[in-house]
Amino acid sequence: MCLKTMPSLDTQEKIKAKAISLFNEHGTGSISIGRIAAEAGISRGNLQYHYAHKQELIRAIYQDIAAEVLSHWQGDDQQPTVRHMAEMFVRQFDYVWRYRFLYREMTVLVRADAVLAQRVRANRVSRIEAVVRFFNALVKNRILKKPRGGESLRYLVMMTWVFCDNWLNFVEIQGNEINSQGLQEGYDHIIEMLYPYLTRRARESIFESYELIQFPSTVA
Amino acid sequence: MCLKTMPSLDTQEKIKAKAISLFNEHGTGSISIGRIAAEAGISRGNLQYHYAHKQELIRAIYQDIAAEVLSHWQGDDQQPTVRHMAEMFVRQFDYVWRYRFLYREMTVLVRADAVLAQRVRANRVSRIEAVVRFFNALVKNRILKKPRGGESLRYLVMMTWVFCDNWLNFVEIQGNEINSQGLQEGYDHIIEMLYPYLTRRARESIFESYELIQFPSTVA
Repeated sequence: MCLKTMPSLDTQEKIKAKAISLFNEHGTGSISIGRIAAEAGISRGNLQYHYAHKQELIRAIYQDIAAEVLSHWQGDDQQPTVRHMAEMFVRQFDYVWRYRFLYREMTVLVRADAVLAQRVRANRVSRIEAVVRFFNALVKNRILKKPRGGESLRYLVMMTWVFCDNWLNFVEIQGNEINSQGLQEGYDHIIEMLYPYLTRRARESIFESYELIQFPSTVA
Repeated sequence: MCLKTMPSLDTQEKIKAKAISLFNEHGTGSISIGRIAAEAGISRGNLQYHYAHKQELIRAIYQDIAAEVLSHWQGDDQQPTVRHMAEMFVRQFDYVWRYRFLYREMTVLVRADAVLAQRVRANRVSRIEAVVRFFNALVKNRILKKPRGGESLRYLVMMTWVFCDNWLNFVEIQGNEINSQGLQEGYDHIIEMLYPYLTRRARESIFESYELIQFPSTVA
């Protein structure tokens, strides 16, 4: 249909970057494929050669996050420290911030697209298992005291999970700017919830871990 | 414009009930004022006599919830027991379920409507303060042990708040049905988080409090 003036991969990256930026600013509902093409400086036909419709584009963006997350979350349980927990918190917050349209609209997007839903579920299950492994490693490394029952650790992981996924939405709905202070307040909550389970050694390293809680993150 | 065949108040209730039902089923994005009018069996002109546009209708629905919540949350701190905490949890879950479109789309709706945003913020602040008062009453009634610092109790309240607002979304994204089991799993998380702070007396009443965790709720 159209002559491509650059390799496909570059065009796809350009389309996705522009889409993420527009979706973050205006939401997915009010942004059309035509608008993304126009702002990316390509024809609508060229865009649709790569992504036939908006759902396909959103799926591609989600796959990028999932791949990035997977590469970062490998080996977390090899570093069972408070400092590494702080890094994981900042890293998760970076995803939520960079792809904030997804975290704002997740329930709606998943309801509208069974393919996306299936991918989100599978990713989420494996990531929660990875965090459970990390928390178990914290127990083994005497950073966390063992909670009372078999499922207790998983419940604590889930509480932090739901909180981290939604803290930015909470701050935003309250009309506050997203900055390092908001990030630190989020971290305060996680520390407070885990405090009864933190060993003395872990409690002594809390203060130092706060130096990592910066936005935007400088954590690799 | 149109002859109204019933009093305005009844018409408004009918419009809102139909809108809630359609929004819950399909989301606000794909439901037009015309569709709501058609399904409510009234003309579009009649609907717009009451609510000029969709945002106004959503605001009216939100005001109803806010008024209902306000009437229910009065005096919670007069009943500082685990049993009453269970009732409050079920009550909150009932709101989230009945108005689930709002909880799914809250961030997006608030970003799109400054009037709604202002109302949501004000309500949220006063409701969080009410829960903080309830938790302080739990401490006074020796149900909860006093957490370590001045802000600790507020952080625990906020963790339960963010969790309760988003637990249904989490269950739904995982593709699970919303039923009493899902509600009980949510309550398990709250109990687990609070467990280190529960006094012996409180811990003894946990089992009994589970009898209230039913969906749909029978709590008044």
